[in-house]
Amino acid sequence: MNKIILIPDSFKGTMTSAEICDIMADALGRAFPRAEIVRIPVADGGEGSVDCFLAALGGKRVPLRVTGPFGQPVEAFYGLPGNGEAAVVEMAAAAGLPLAEGRLNPLLASTYGVGQLLLAAAQSGAARLVLGLGGSATNDGGCGAAAALGVRFYGRDGASFVPTGGTLADIARIDVSRLDKALSGMDIVAMCDVDNPLAGPNGAAAVFGPQKGASAEMLPRLDAGLAHLADVIRQDLGLEVANTPGSGAAGGFGAGVLAFLGGRLQMGIETVLDTVHFNTLLQNASVVITGEGKLDSQSLRGKVVVGVARRARAAGVPVVAVVGDIGDSIEAVYGEGVSAVFSINRVAVPYAQAKTRAKSDLALTMQNLARAYTVFT
Amino acid sequence: MNKIILIPDSFKGTMTSAEICDIMADALGRAFPRAEIVRIPVADGGEGSVDCFLAALGGKRVPLRVTGPFGQPVEAFYGLPGNGEAAVVEMAAAAGLPLAEGRLNPLLASTYGVGQLLLAAAQSGAARLVLGLGGSATNDGGCGAAAALGVRFYGRDGASFVPTGGTLADIARIDVSRLDKALSGMDIVAMCDVDNPLAGPNGAAAVFGPQKGASAEMLPRLDAGLAHLADVIRQDLGLEVANTPGSGAAGGFGAGVLAFLGGRLQMGIETVLDTVHFNTLLQNASVVITGEGKLDSQSLRGKVVVGVARRARAAGVPVVAVVGDIGDSIEAVYGEGVSAVFSINRVAVPYAQAKTRAKSDLALTMQNLARAYTVFT
Repeated sequence: MNKIILIPDSFKGTMTSAEICDIMADALGRAFPRAEIVRIPVADGGEGSVDCFLAALGGKRVPLRVTGPFGQPVEAFYGLPGNGEAAVVEMAAAAGLPLAEGRLNPLLASTYGVGQLLLAAAQSGAARLVLGLGGSATNDGGCGAAAALGVRFYGRDGASFVPTGGTLADIARIDVSRLDKALSGMDIVAMCDVDNPLAGPNGAAAVFGPQKGASAEMLPRLDAGLAHLADVIRQDLGLEVANTPGSGAAGGFGAGVLAFLGGRLQMGIETVLDTVHFNTLLQNASVVITGEGKLDSQSLRGKVVVGVARRARAAGVPVVAVVGDIGDSIEAVYGEGVSAVFSINRVAVPYAQAKTRAKSDLALTMQNLARAYTVFT
Repeated sequence: MNKIILIPDSFKGTMTSAEICDIMADALGRAFPRAEIVRIPVADGGEGSVDCFLAALGGKRVPLRVTGPFGQPVEAFYGLPGNGEAAVVEMAAAAGLPLAEGRLNPLLASTYGVGQLLLAAAQSGAARLVLGLGGSATNDGGCGAAAALGVRFYGRDGASFVPTGGTLADIARIDVSRLDKALSGMDIVAMCDVDNPLAGPNGAAAVFGPQKGASAEMLPRLDAGLAHLADVIRQDLGLEVANTPGSGAAGGFGAGVLAFLGGRLQMGIETVLDTVHFNTLLQNASVVITGEGKLDSQSLRGKVVVGVARRARAAGVPVVAVVGDIGDSIEAVYGEGVSAVFSINRVAVPYAQAKTRAKSDLALTMQNLARAYTVFT
């Protein structure tokens, strides 16, 4: 056992990916004291994503005071992991639900501060800009962030304004010509694991609005605003974004990334794998250990384990998945490069009880996998 | 992977040891088509024990009509596993709870038929006689069986009789001189996994009487009868059996084995290991796979996994335990020779639900252990 790569997703509601890495590394470090153990806690684009990249690659966390979702100043940050070739912004840092606690209102909440973070991150000299979409309190289609980056939104009266969820319908014209030059030529990637369209019954407002505090009365207004935004984007920028999968992510910020920033949407795990140069790491790896809260047929659709396994398979490196629950039909997962799957469940108890003991159960599972490896080889 | 020995205990209430062997062998046979797979479903001394030995070693099941617990004829059997060097009797075949269904009464139930089975088994030419204690409906201290084998019990009136639980107190004298010669020189071993004394608060009647149908009124009479039996054994045979651990097994049959048959009590797993010549099997084995319903600190006390592991450790063969639940403190189990432990639980559900899916969960666990082995080596 020369080099072990740990690259687990979080077990939602139970353990963060960083906690899982630590527990795995502790057990494996005891068993294989001379092995190189690489920890890559997987970022999901939401709160904590910057720290995940920093944990994987080192680097620095740059603090920055920006405008919060309701205009108040907030202490936010971005990250320059590794050698700073990529800068990472998590939108939750400037527009996340915790910042809106007690006053959730997607009609008013703005992503303006996210734009401020993106601008500073772009000015750092990084060649790539990674934006984690997730955990947002906003429904502004990314217009706030775009405004902070120089995009102009004009009302019917010809005056420019910063649209929010409640005023998207007032946009008459969009001008992207003054987008800050710091973003020019950058590879802009948004981590996005949902494929919702911008508007309609599966759109941002209908699906994610309620958890952001949208009342039943607000939803049609929010949805119509996003649909209108798509119309103006088509008219002024010549882009069709309304039905691009993921355009409805993060209150429509997905569409904003495509239309205003010239960026692309990517499954979060792919962004992580690219950013950590996973293919290079694999070159002399003995084994990759990944995991997620539940492995099942859904896992084939871009979730972490399968994303990791596909690359490892191509490099000929075995993959062991250590997961919470193992769903009923996982045969296809083997075909994607997962060598073996183990559940951390060690006693037959319901989830409410299992989650309270997940950390020690994971530790025991890792200990026994290490023991089995030692015996088998 | 040249030779795999499967030697699991049953998962009580979920799967028999034979079922577990079959599921394990199926999964491993697919993964390692050229490996020799040896199946040893562990007998626990109770119902099904003869079939376990036959499944492990081949051999024959000899049917025999004997006297049932309440004098009725019953179709019973004994086993001659392998080359017939040992004969195996399970007392449940002639005195088991199912034979007493609807008329449970430990005052009246007799082990006479067990003695008939032992006699026939002894006459088979075997050098060893294995008796499985367990699942009995009796509380006669083995007197019924002893009577069938030639031991004479006399009342105060000088007449011989066959004592049952309710008439033990009437025994005035015991004569073992006419014990059938077929038993002479045989190694007689009773499989016994409990350490209860014959009488008293931890004795056969107090602890096991109620499940045999003893009412609260019967218990003192049953207990006093066993205590009296110990007195007469001391007086006439010069043996102290009352406090020998296990003398209270199977309605006091443990004491009867010691006093009337000149036999010994042994943990069931040790009897199994001896009978299948486990030490010889280990000589060219790649791995031993064992298991039990729950592995915990109790497992150190003579349960199957540890019994198996101790011998495998001495032979330098790795042991993987595949179990239902893994208890909280299993460190000591590693020290006994268990290389690694895996639970079959794959989803966090309560036991009532887990047991309904135990077979497929076991199959999946074996499949993934085989996959891990293949990857690791």
